[in-house]
Amino acid sequence: MTSLGSQARRIRLDMEYDGTDFVGWQTQAQGRTVQGELRRALGIFLQEEAEPVGSGRTDAGTHARAQVVHFETRSQHLVERMVPALNSLLPPDLAVLRALEVAETFHARYSAIGKHYRYRIQLRRHPLQRCQVWNLKRPALDEAAIRKAVVFLKGRHSFQAFCNADPPPEHFECMVREARWVSSEEEYRLDIEANRFLRHMVRIVVGTLVEVGTGRFTPDQFRRLVELPGRRGGAGVTAPACGLTLWQIHYPPAFGGASGAL
Amino acid sequence: MTSLGSQARRIRLDMEYDGTDFVGWQTQAQGRTVQGELRRALGIFLQEEAEPVGSGRTDAGTHARAQVVHFETRSQHLVERMVPALNSLLPPDLAVLRALEVAETFHARYSAIGKHYRYRIQLRRHPLQRCQVWNLKRPALDEAAIRKAVVFLKGRHSFQAFCNADPPPEHFECMVREARWVSSEEEYRLDIEANRFLRHMVRIVVGTLVEVGTGRFTPDQFRRLVELPGRRGGAGVTAPACGLTLWQIHYPPAFGGASGAL
Repeated sequence: MTSLGSQARRIRLDMEYDGTDFVGWQTQAQGRTVQGELRRALGIFLQEEAEPVGSGRTDAGTHARAQVVHFETRSQHLVERMVPALNSLLPPDLAVLRALEVAETFHARYSAIGKHYRYRIQLRRHPLQRCQVWNLKRPALDEAAIRKAVVFLKGRHSFQAFCNADPPPEHFECMVREARWVSSEEEYRLDIEANRFLRHMVRIVVGTLVEVGTGRFTPDQFRRLVELPGRRGGAGVTAPACGLTLWQIHYPPAFGGASGAL
Repeated sequence: MTSLGSQARRIRLDMEYDGTDFVGWQTQAQGRTVQGELRRALGIFLQEEAEPVGSGRTDAGTHARAQVVHFETRSQHLVERMVPALNSLLPPDLAVLRALEVAETFHARYSAIGKHYRYRIQLRRHPLQRCQVWNLKRPALDEAAIRKAVVFLKGRHSFQAFCNADPPPEHFECMVREARWVSSEEEYRLDIEANRFLRHMVRIVVGTLVEVGTGRFTPDQFRRLVELPGRRGGAGVTAPACGLTLWQIHYPPAFGGASGAL
């Protein structure tokens, strides 16, 4: 990430994408990435190279309702023009929802004060929603047990047991501000907000909660996975990427506030 | 459709599909069809040829939340086994939601007493919903004008102006029982129920309503298109197939009642 000096402007983009046909957010040697598609569109629009920096990676198949990105540019394009111009250059499964000029101290990743993920589960097959849910193919889950377990997520804990630690993060501590299990006749949903998330954390939390719902873990065993520091492994399966959506990212008002606010 | 005689059972299936990758409901010389995929799965499961008869066709790209199909079979498979067994044989974009044995007088098309279609429109690009809405790329629509026009749809009218009449239907009269224009900040929606629909009727109604919203037609011009019998052509554009979903089909209680009831 080169700095373009005092003439450069810093732009924040809020973006939505369908992760189904991407190998993830981050540019890789092979495969179609969100960052790669965005960099290509920015290059054409700005007529200069620009390096989009995301709030964090999303896995292959995981969606974003409101991913946030920043980049620097010397171009003088009006920010109002950027949404339609970039959308005309982006593929149908990726769109810019909002563009705004921000202070040069803004950083999509380091300025974030919280993130909200949503994970959706359906027991029946629903072809119209199949790319955005985990189709569990089970008759039912013990929801009372799951609701007991979800409560233990809240607060400051080491999520080492719920992390794919390759590569290892600097530390495993996350502050979970909200964790809600919502159910309707057709769907279960986990909404979880934290200051940060570890790699695969939401997917392993969901996989383990489902195994609380099937009786493989008790709520108390789930509590111990969350509360015993340094405990490694032992959690449940990793839920599929397709059920997960990066729902909202919180920033201070001076940086444009939360993404994906309706 | 051969009749299998007195030993045959008649089975009703309620089905959901994502129309994106189908060339429509009905089997054609070329292309992947819902009827073709279902016939293939039935042949494997029943170990005999079966001809699925749908409540009506859907266009290429049009979805169904609750299409209804019947077929006859001599097989003695329990009806309870049919949903999981057929779903294991069907592709991910097509599923059976319900199977029930019905009287031999049941006919998916002729026993239907009403149908409900939903059409969705969004003005902003939303990649996560792009295959199920019409992305209109306009700043706004005159909703007051559209709401005035929608009222004229209700009742018994000749929908000749709103019909792709190739091949011509027996007659153009439809009884519209309900037509509602619903809007939220992010989406417009038309819900329309009638005893029957003509070819492309909902899509031409929606295209014309949008042109009421852009000022090309007045609500009164729309009224005349609906009310003047025998008027041909003159209506607006045909809205894209992808925004349309066959939402529900009504049958008498003796035949299992409405499809897609939650």
